Amino acid sequence: MNLTITDVRLTPILVADPPLLNTQGVHQPYTPRLIVEVETAGGVTGVGETYGDTKYLELARPFAERLTGRQVSDLNGLFTIADDVAVDGSQVSGAVDVGGLRGVQTADKLRLSVVSGFEVACLDALGKALGLPVHALLGGKVRDSVEYSAYLFYKWAAHPEGVAAEEDDWGAALDPDGIVAQARKFTERYGFTSFKLKGGVFPPQEEIAAVRALAAAFPGHPLRLDPNGAWSVETSLAVAKELGDVLEYLEDPALGTPAMARVAAGTDVPLATNMCVTTFAEIKEAFARDAVQVVLSDHHYWGGLRNTQHLAAICRTFGVGVSMHSNTHLGISLAAMTHVASTVPNLHHACDSHYPWQSEDVLTERLRFEDGRVAVGDRPGLGVELDRDRLRFLHRRWLADEGTLRDRDDAAAMRAAEPGWSVPPAPRW
Amino acid sequence: MNLTITDVRLTPILVADPPLLNTQGVHQPYTPRLIVEVETAGGVTGVGETYGDTKYLELARPFAERLTGRQVSDLNGLFTIADDVAVDGSQVSGAVDVGGLRGVQTADKLRLSVVSGFEVACLDALGKALGLPVHALLGGKVRDSVEYSAYLFYKWAAHPEGVAAEEDDWGAALDPDGIVAQARKFTERYGFTSFKLKGGVFPPQEEIAAVRALAAAFPGHPLRLDPNGAWSVETSLAVAKELGDVLEYLEDPALGTPAMARVAAGTDVPLATNMCVTTFAEIKEAFARDAVQVVLSDHHYWGGLRNTQHLAAICRTFGVGVSMHSNTHLGISLAAMTHVASTVPNLHHACDSHYPWQSEDVLTERLRFEDGRVAVGDRPGLGVELDRDRLRFLHRRWLADEGTLRDRDDAAAMRAAEPGWSVPPAPRW
Repeated sequence: MNLTITDVRLTPILVADPPLLNTQGVHQPYTPRLIVEVETAGGVTGVGETYGDTKYLELARPFAERLTGRQVSDLNGLFTIADDVAVDGSQVSGAVDVGGLRGVQTADKLRLSVVSGFEVACLDALGKALGLPVHALLGGKVRDSVEYSAYLFYKWAAHPEGVAAEEDDWGAALDPDGIVAQARKFTERYGFTSFKLKGGVFPPQEEIAAVRALAAAFPGHPLRLDPNGAWSVETSLAVAKELGDVLEYLEDPALGTPAMARVAAGTDVPLATNMCVTTFAEIKEAFARDAVQVVLSDHHYWGGLRNTQHLAAICRTFGVGVSMHSNTHLGISLAAMTHVASTVPNLHHACDSHYPWQSEDVLTERLRFEDGRVAVGDRPGLGVELDRDRLRFLHRRWLADEGTLRDRDDAAAMRAAEPGWSVPPAPRW
Repeated sequence: MNLTITDVRLTPILVADPPLLNTQGVHQPYTPRLIVEVETAGGVTGVGETYGDTKYLELARPFAERLTGRQVSDLNGLFTIADDVAVDGSQVSGAVDVGGLRGVQTADKLRLSVVSGFEVACLDALGKALGLPVHALLGGKVRDSVEYSAYLFYKWAAHPEGVAAEEDDWGAALDPDGIVAQARKFTERYGFTSFKLKGGVFPPQEEIAAVRALAAAFPGHPLRLDPNGAWSVETSLAVAKELGDVLEYLEDPALGTPAMARVAAGTDVPLATNMCVTTFAEIKEAFARDAVQVVLSDHHYWGGLRNTQHLAAICRTFGVGVSMHSNTHLGISLAAMTHVASTVPNLHHACDSHYPWQSEDVLTERLRFEDGRVAVGDRPGLGVELDRDRLRFLHRRWLADEGTLRDRDDAAAMRAAEPGWSVPPAPRW
């Protein structure tokens, strides 16, 4: 069993994305992802997936070059490579990521996001080589399926006229009735029993009404609201007061640890985050201030599945909850999330996933939600198979793009409908 | 490759231990250890090692019974088993462990110490089955050898007259000259370049003199002093002041997090611990109070190698150093320590090891220190081989014992020389 890496392939793609609204704008009709393939001398290929914007690609290419000749089992070494690969300072703003709503943007975080794609590909290859599922390489699953929540969005029925896009069959959702109808579809199609609404789109009273409508339609089901930091501390506290009886948690109501700490101090509603705690460096202050009660890990920007396990151990140690965040992603990442989530004992909230919104994938067989859960497979590696025809098709779409879609920009997409649009200053309300 | 566990063997043994002095007494001539063997349907056997006192054995036996039929890769499941196995409350004092100087004793910690023996045995078996070294199962080594420090002890030339014991060739060390001579032997035999003195035996001024003598004999080399919490805050601060220019760190000068925090607040000398932070539950308060600057992990009581990696990640996140503690142990545990230490990027201090004091082992070939380091092997599993004849011999010694040595009791051993001895109240000075 030769585990030496002989080839690494990077394939940037564009995948269809519905017109989902958030506080910064709307999803573009196509979103970039990067598919990573790692091939070993023993003849197995592992696949990984991460963000595909230009700045990630620019880092992934020199990273990939350094991988050849190394052992696919050398996962700790990926961080050493990452330290060696230079990040172009002009690509990192130090401010909150505009396109992705991914919290503070640092060179380190950019590196870790790239590492995650390679780490998952290496774990997939290693598992295939050894005949073990990825969860076994992570110490073994402690549950046989992983629960996900329905990720509700305000959305238009279609992308703006004149914009090339795929159709979707979800319809519009721009008020409480629309959100409840969308939730029902999620329930019918996938069996989800908990619901998260992406907020920060309409004035808080409208979003409160939508959550109230969900609570009435699905009494007793866990509900969450996530305005991506669009609110002031005062607004956050007012919403928490109004919805305290129905919310499982409130997600990133205000921007940054100091503001979150002030909100947390004023309410019993737990606060979750994937914006103020997105790196290991942000943990100490946030935990010391009791600013967050649930950290939503995204294995992409935390640096992979093993780092996600470390994060979970840290949260367990400090009495902070842990669950999983999701940005637009495909089946490879859903499989990776499912494997790692199955190994985390202290996972007490359903994970987020955009996957139901992605009509396109690069797999021969889509992952399935049943009763809102994804079964944890025992096939070697991630248990997924790349559909090379689909990959080529989606890559050709990326090649054909003239640069307007290769970097996610929700504000630019919004300007197709509202020409004067710019990202609102935070707090917006 | 069938990874199903078909058999688990537990072999308690007694191994020779020299008359090493500490604040509670002296090492008994023989100390109990438990050797764990896990056999798989695929025909490989993995070995582990942990504490062998009665209370560990009583927990290990029902634990072993539940292991059969499980996958050797199911490491996370070991903690689930541990939760199921009842701990006899009368066996845990809730106070500081008298015999082992291992910090607070809780049912949870007892369980984790037992888990560690099984976890290492499972990792060894898994590595052998897959053809991978244990470090590769932990994400891969980031260094090719692991540095250890010389673990200096005040000691008698021999155990008290009339006490059955093995001889050792280290001679007595009861004053600064004796300690320096012992340090020279360590250097000659193993090439160690950093030194830790187990203190708390003589009044602080004598131990300060010993450290000064070491500093004069080995200028510039890292030095540590560990009185096992025998000092008051005031004494600790006085020693820190006197030795601040030569100490790499001061280890557990005072007992418990509040006292350590007061010491830490009064000195720039870093404080290390394997007594006030010995469980995940103790981390939050100790870190919040800045009570310790280096946590000395002992994979036995932290629950194994993967938990040691989690601990290292926590320390890294909170800007606290990490290194490794050692209690009397054999080559299996030294191999385990070396494998996990090789995977921890933030290991910036030489690890402790009692191994040079153990003339007996259960391996066909002893591990070697060269230039104070143990090479990280690439053979499958831990890379060690059990010597079944030696194991039988040491087990027969355990069987023959009439119960006086099966539970380590340094105070009882001291009474053989000083009939009226009892463990001094802390702080002693």
